[in-house]
Amino acid sequence: MESFSGPDATTSDDGPPPPSPRARSAEARRDAILTAAATAFVEHGYGATSVDDIAERLGVSKPTLYYHVGGKQELLGASFTLALDAYSDAVEDEAVSGVTGRERLHQVVQKYVEITTTVHGRCLHRVPDVELTPEVRDRLRAVKRKVDARIRDLLREGVRDGSLRSADIRMSTFAISGAMNSIAQWYAPSGKLSPEEIAERLWDSFAEGLRPR
Amino acid sequence: MESFSGPDATTSDDGPPPPSPRARSAEARRDAILTAAATAFVEHGYGATSVDDIAERLGVSKPTLYYHVGGKQELLGASFTLALDAYSDAVEDEAVSGVTGRERLHQVVQKYVEITTTVHGRCLHRVPDVELTPEVRDRLRAVKRKVDARIRDLLREGVRDGSLRSADIRMSTFAISGAMNSIAQWYAPSGKLSPEEIAERLWDSFAEGLRPR
Repeated sequence: MESFSGPDATTSDDGPPPPSPRARSAEARRDAILTAAATAFVEHGYGATSVDDIAERLGVSKPTLYYHVGGKQELLGASFTLALDAYSDAVEDEAVSGVTGRERLHQVVQKYVEITTTVHGRCLHRVPDVELTPEVRDRLRAVKRKVDARIRDLLREGVRDGSLRSADIRMSTFAISGAMNSIAQWYAPSGKLSPEEIAERLWDSFAEGLRPR
Repeated sequence: MESFSGPDATTSDDGPPPPSPRARSAEARRDAILTAAATAFVEHGYGATSVDDIAERLGVSKPTLYYHVGGKQELLGASFTLALDAYSDAVEDEAVSGVTGRERLHQVVQKYVEITTTVHGRCLHRVPDVELTPEVRDRLRAVKRKVDARIRDLLREGVRDGSLRSADIRMSTFAISGAMNSIAQWYAPSGKLSPEEIAERLWDSFAEGLRPR
């Protein structure tokens, strides 16, 4: 059985103990590496994090990280890609089961907020896109366009079926995306509210607005 | 009269011509430098911008920039400070003349959006705070807390005077700030909507919500 640490493993003396190597698939190993990388980027910033920091966090050697994912930019790109795949899937037709535009938009908000609170979601919104390779930056833009187009379509659908108010669709889309993305700036897994509760309260503020009814 | 370029000036051969030195106060010179620096940080990212790039953009020498403001981190800190001063002033009691909580919050949103569309506002929201000196980062946090506290107070004031709906104050504050801050990600001075129009449409989406009335 391959060990978690990979072919060139040496365990850091002062780092945390490495996770048990047993029953870990290559994919699980990759996940653990990407989680550690994204956590470091979120906590200390991309520029201030070295591959050494990430290796130390995992208690593995630098060549192990290179073997499983690659250098710092590949680690960042792979973290972004995990979040982008999740966002892209979340707005697909089959991921949304509601009947009215309002119900379907509500579901998209729930899924989007949940992804945004994961470490890869937070990494995506906190590391500036100038740090990305052109390929990942293009993918980021494509997924942003896809999500925004989906929110706009659901707003229009809701206006048509009478479940949503007719308003400035473009600005409402920006407001919803902007508010959801900003969760990545303040969310901490140790906080009081679960991702589900955050999504519900945010949805209430979008849906009901500030004016008394 | 001192020239715009300062004591060590050499003008770049291929850069744009330097602004006319006449009648320019030291403050106007500093403003021009900070505008060029913030524009470069917004367009190319902080990491990818050198002091040489900024000097070239202005058609002045690198020592001129050092003389008027300082190195790259001072340029960034000074741009942040301009935006932070503006945000801080915008939420002061005397800056807000409305009677009800809703009117006063509306005014804060107008001012906040206007600042966010300036190049220093965009720089503040687009350069990650890990790039800042501890002093500027502390100021950033203090002003964010001040603005958020003000929005929360106005939401509570509006609930008391009946001009606003009673909702989750903390989450509404995050939603409003998040949506306003995100303008920095997509706003371009060449776009169709003026800052005032953006503020009005965003305010409409906060105030009226998505549900039909």
